[in-house]
Amino acid sequence: MSLDDKATKPHDRLAEALAAEMSAVNDLIRARMSSEHAPRIPEVTAHLIEAGGKRLRPMLTLAAARMLGYDGPYHVHLAATVEFIHTATLLHDDVVDESQQRRGRPTANLLWDNKSSVLVGDYLLARGFQLMTETDNMRVLNILSNASAVIAEGEVLQLTAAQDLRTDEGIYLQVIRGKTAALFSAATEVGGVIAGGTDAQVQALFEYGDALGIAFQMVDDLLDYGGSAAETGKNVGDDFRERKVTLPVIKAVAAADAAERAFWSRVIEKGKQEPGDLEEALALMAKHGALEATKAEAIAWADKARAALAALPDHPLRAMLDDLADFVVARVR
Amino acid sequence: MSLDDKATKPHDRLAEALAAEMSAVNDLIRARMSSEHAPRIPEVTAHLIEAGGKRLRPMLTLAAARMLGYDGPYHVHLAATVEFIHTATLLHDDVVDESQQRRGRPTANLLWDNKSSVLVGDYLLARGFQLMTETDNMRVLNILSNASAVIAEGEVLQLTAAQDLRTDEGIYLQVIRGKTAALFSAATEVGGVIAGGTDAQVQALFEYGDALGIAFQMVDDLLDYGGSAAETGKNVGDDFRERKVTLPVIKAVAAADAAERAFWSRVIEKGKQEPGDLEEALALMAKHGALEATKAEAIAWADKARAALAALPDHPLRAMLDDLADFVVARVR
Repeated sequence: MSLDDKATKPHDRLAEALAAEMSAVNDLIRARMSSEHAPRIPEVTAHLIEAGGKRLRPMLTLAAARMLGYDGPYHVHLAATVEFIHTATLLHDDVVDESQQRRGRPTANLLWDNKSSVLVGDYLLARGFQLMTETDNMRVLNILSNASAVIAEGEVLQLTAAQDLRTDEGIYLQVIRGKTAALFSAATEVGGVIAGGTDAQVQALFEYGDALGIAFQMVDDLLDYGGSAAETGKNVGDDFRERKVTLPVIKAVAAADAAERAFWSRVIEKGKQEPGDLEEALALMAKHGALEATKAEAIAWADKARAALAALPDHPLRAMLDDLADFVVARVR
Repeated sequence: MSLDDKATKPHDRLAEALAAEMSAVNDLIRARMSSEHAPRIPEVTAHLIEAGGKRLRPMLTLAAARMLGYDGPYHVHLAATVEFIHTATLLHDDVVDESQQRRGRPTANLLWDNKSSVLVGDYLLARGFQLMTETDNMRVLNILSNASAVIAEGEVLQLTAAQDLRTDEGIYLQVIRGKTAALFSAATEVGGVIAGGTDAQVQALFEYGDALGIAFQMVDDLLDYGGSAAETGKNVGDDFRERKVTLPVIKAVAAADAAERAFWSRVIEKGKQEPGDLEEALALMAKHGALEATKAEAIAWADKARAALAALPDHPLRAMLDDLADFVVARVR
C-alpha cells in the first residue's frame, strides 16, 4: 500500500473499491424512494438522501458479502434496505429531537413539517421491508426486522433515560447498541448471510459491526465535549444543553462529591443551566478523567472490532474494515 | 338464524365465533408489545391496546383463513401483525392530526409526548414485521410490507390534499384506499394465502377487504357531517374544522356556483371559519345532494364487497362477513 493510499480515509477507499455496487445501490434507492401518487415523498427523501452522508452502513453490507465471495445481486437490495431504515430513523429522530440541522442543511421537519417527517419515515421503512422481501431469504428478514425493533427500543430508552442521573453505564450501552450499533451489526451480518458464510463468519461480522457501532457512538458522545463544529457537524455542548446523559457525564457523576452532584442535578435533571456551566462540566470531567476513560473504552471497542475480523478470509476489503475501525477512534486517539 | 342472532352486531358474532383464536391473538399481542428494557413502551401500548377498539382487522384475517379450512397456527401471528400495524398507524396519526382523543380516551401524544408516540409506533411496526417472519411465508411478508407502504403513501397524499379544493374523487379514493382499505384488504388476503387458497379465492378475499374498507371510510366521512359523538366517537364537523377535503365536500364543490365556491375557498383553503359556517356547509351539501350521493357510493362499495364473497366456500363465517358489509353501511342507510 503506497503512502498515498494511506493518506485517504478508509471509507473513501471502501467507496472506491465498491464503486460499481454503490452506484447500483444509489440507483435502487432513487427508484424505490419515489412515489407515483404523493410527490411530497420524493421531495423530502431527496432532500435527505441527496445531502449525502457517508453511506457507511450500506458499504458495510456490500463489503461483508464481497469479502465472502458473494457474486449474486441481493447484497445491493440489502444495502439499500439498510440505508432506507437509517434514513427513516433520521427523519423520526429529527422530530423527536426537534432538530434544526442535519448534515449541515435544515432538517425536513423544519422545511416541511413534523407530519411529513413522520409519514415519509414510515414510507421509507415500509419500502425497505418491501425491498428485502425480494431477496427471498427469511434469515435476513429476521435480522433486519429484529434490528428495527432494537433501534426503536433504544430510542425509547434514550428518551426515558435523558435527564435522569440514575442512568448507568449498562443502560448507556443498551441505548447506544440500539440507536447506533444495531444497524451496523445488522448491516454486516446480513452481508455475511446472503453470501452463505459459515456460522463463525456470520458471527464475526456481527461482532465487528456491533463493536464498530459502539466505538463510533462513544466517539460521537466524546466529541460533544471536545470537538469543533467544523470537524463533527455538531457544536460542543449540544448534548449538555439537551441534558443527555452520555458516557462522559455518567463517569463524572459516578466520581462526584456532594457539591458536584448538586451541580449535575441542577444542570441535567432540573435543566437550570447558566452561563459558565458547560465550562464547569468540562472542568469536572477533566478532574475525574471522565473524557480519558471514555476514550479508552472507545478504543477498546475498536480493538474488539478489529479482533473479530481475524475469523474472516484475508481480503483487501478486510484490511479496509480494519483501518475503518482504527479511523473511527483516530479522531480522539 | 334466530331473531336473537340477527339482533347482535355482526362483529360481535364474529368475535364469538372466533373467540378462542382472538384470545390467542390478544395473548400474542400482549407478549410481543412488552419490552424488557424500555418500560415506557408497554405503558403507551397498553393504554392504546387495552382501550379495546373492535379488533376488526385481526378478525378479518382469522375469518378468511378459517373459511378456507386453515388449521395451522400462523393466522394468529398474521392477525396480531395486522393489529400491530394498525396500532402503529394510530399512534403516528395522532401525532400528525394533533389529536386529543382516541376511542374516548386521551391520546398517547397528549398523555406522554409526540416523541413517545413516534418511537413506540416504530417499535410496534418492527415487532409486527418480526412476528410475520415467523410464519416463514414470503408471500404474506410481501403483501403486508406492500400494504405498509401504501398506507404511508395514502397518509402523505392526504396531508398534501388537505385544504386543497383541487382534490377530486380519484385522489380521494387513493387516499382512503391507502389510509383505510389497504390494511383491510391485506388482512383478508394474507388469511387466504396462509390457508393455501386458490388464486381466485385469494383475489376474492382481497376484493372483499378493499371494498369493505372503502365503504367503511366513506361512511366515516359521511357521519362527520351527520352523526353524533355518541354514535361515532367523533363530533360532527371535525373534518370541516380540520379542513379535510372528504367526499361530501368534493361533491358539493363540484356542483358549486361562483358564490358557493368562494365560500368553500374561504373555509377550506384559507381556513377563515366563522360561526354558522358548518351549518352553511351542511345546507350546501343538502342543496346539491352531496350526502345522498356519498351514501349511494358507500352502499355500492358494500354491495361490491358482498358480491366478492360469492367466490368463497359456503361457511357460517362467510355469512357473517356478508352481514358485516351490510352493517358497515347500515348506520347511514
